[in-house]
Amino acid sequence: MAFTLDEAQRIVSIALNHGRDAGWNPLSAVVLDAGGHPIAFARSDGASPGRYAIAEAKAYGAIMLGMGGRAQMARAEAQAYFMGTVNGVFGGKVLPVPGGVLVRDLDGAVIGAVGVTGDSSDNDAEAACAGITAVGYTPEP
Amino acid sequence: MAFTLDEAQRIVSIALNHGRDAGWNPLSAVVLDAGGHPIAFARSDGASPGRYAIAEAKAYGAIMLGMGGRAQMARAEAQAYFMGTVNGVFGGKVLPVPGGVLVRDLDGAVIGAVGVTGDSSDNDAEAACAGITAVGYTPEP
Amino acid sequence: MAFTLDEAQRIVSIALNHGRDAGWNPLSAVVLDAGGHPIAFARSDGASPGRYAIAEAKAYGAIMLGMGGRAQMARAEAQAYFMGTVNGVFGGKVLPVPGGVLVRDLDGAVIGAVGVTGDSSDNDAEAACAGITAVGYTPEP
Amino acid sequence: MAFTLDEAQRIVSIALNHGRDAGWNPLSAVVLDAGGHPIAFARSDGASPGRYAIAEAKAYGAIMLGMGGRAQMARAEAQAYFMGTVNGVFGGKVLPVPGGVLVRDLDGAVIGAVGVTGDSSDNDAEAACAGITAVGYTPEP
Repeated sequence: MAFTLDEAQRIVSIALNHGRDAGWNPLSAVVLDAGGHPIAFARSDGASPGRYAIAEAKAYGAIMLGMGGRAQMARAEAQAYFMGTVNGVFGGKVLPVPGGVLVRDLDGAVIGAVGVTGDSSDNDAEAACAGITAVGYTPEP
Repeated sequence: MAFTLDEAQRIVSIALNHGRDAGWNPLSAVVLDAGGHPIAFARSDGASPGRYAIAEAKAYGAIMLGMGGRAQMARAEAQAYFMGTVNGVFGGKVLPVPGGVLVRDLDGAVIGAVGVTGDSSDNDAEAACAGITAVGYTPEP
Repeated sequence: MAFTLDEAQRIVSIALNHGRDAGWNPLSAVVLDAGGHPIAFARSDGASPGRYAIAEAKAYGAIMLGMGGRAQMARAEAQAYFMGTVNGVFGGKVLPVPGGVLVRDLDGAVIGAVGVTGDSSDNDAEAACAGITAVGYTPEP
Repeated sequence: MAFTLDEAQRIVSIALNHGRDAGWNPLSAVVLDAGGHPIAFARSDGASPGRYAIAEAKAYGAIMLGMGGRAQMARAEAQAYFMGTVNGVFGGKVLPVPGGVLVRDLDGAVIGAVGVTGDSSDNDAEAACAGITAVGYTPEP
């Protein structure tokens, strides 16, 4: 099971609109497949130029480690050097805070992940979940 | 002057649809800003997972060198080691073939670049130009 | 559809045995999933230490580009700087010669790839195909 | 003195089976030679795609520093920035937690290292030691 481009683009659009409607800072969002490869990305007008890399790292780390940003943050809070070195293991593409959201199918197999960045980490995760839920999947933030 | 997200998304959609309507292999397209940073990306269903990196390299090289993919290819044909080492200079993010298309404003200042990949390099460039032209800019393939 | 570890290990073992039975230089083989991530690897006694990286690059390039080593080599023969810079695009993990063999399901979707190295490129590809065929898949060398 | 492929494959299999028999999360294991180069690797069905990189980093750091994961962790606990920057020194391939297990011969010379990942770090180390002990070596976790 895999995201279609149509699903990925709807997730990205809904996430960005969620932030805009809420009056948050401009969001950026990426959808990765189960291997960590990009399907769709968008950066809101006014967002800083580094947003692709941040969104990708949030989602890529979720895929590589098989856990969402909240679980990664808990591990980083407990053992900061562990997540710091894991970041190095994956060439810098790990960012252990909310906003990286894993998506599994009904059997628990990972379909992909969504990375959102631009506002607070909690709001980023909320926007990602809004997009994932809207297309019929269950988010694992 | 800069691409808005709306413009970038229209360029990406038109490029992908251009290839689909023509019966080509599934295309992927990225739009980068004048600093070489991603604004929008989409990978057609059925495209291989590495398409983001290829599209980005085509467009990033165009931005960094200030020349489109055709001019880069001419240089590579004349002096292969030059473009080979330029690839290394930019951390691998240069791919000197058509499909990397530069976009300038009326004063000649670079606004950004579009990278398309998936079919032949010439078709990739044609799809990129279709998108750029449709939103009112002049492509430099 | 995805390789199980049992299938991947059988592919690796059969490939290595194929070379040993034929009296070739000691082979090494890796099996990657559809996202380019390793499932199983083995390096024959007497093989040089760099064999993991070579096997991985043969298979990883096949996954990222959606084409086997023979098609990659044809492109490299026609346009050497293209495959040279594609190598840079993927962080060095592309090696455009036979021995990187793509595996698709009956619908044409990529399941993964096998990379074999140690003898001539043609023999490497033959060993990879022996393993893939033995577990019931169709190789695309 | 060096691991044979047969020994390395037995270590990997025993480590994976150890975790499966204990009901742990699916494990992945790599065996590296004295130069830090892979001999054998396997990733259990259901493990996340990033497990090769994690297993390799645990074992590679053990080889490069000449100390097992527990000693590396003690150093990280005492001086986090040291292990954080050592991670950078070795291109990200250091992960200072249990599960990277060094193997020496009777004279104290390093033969290689085993990296296991997938469950808790302590369980990962236990599985690695089970494999190393079963083939007649003394682990240094």
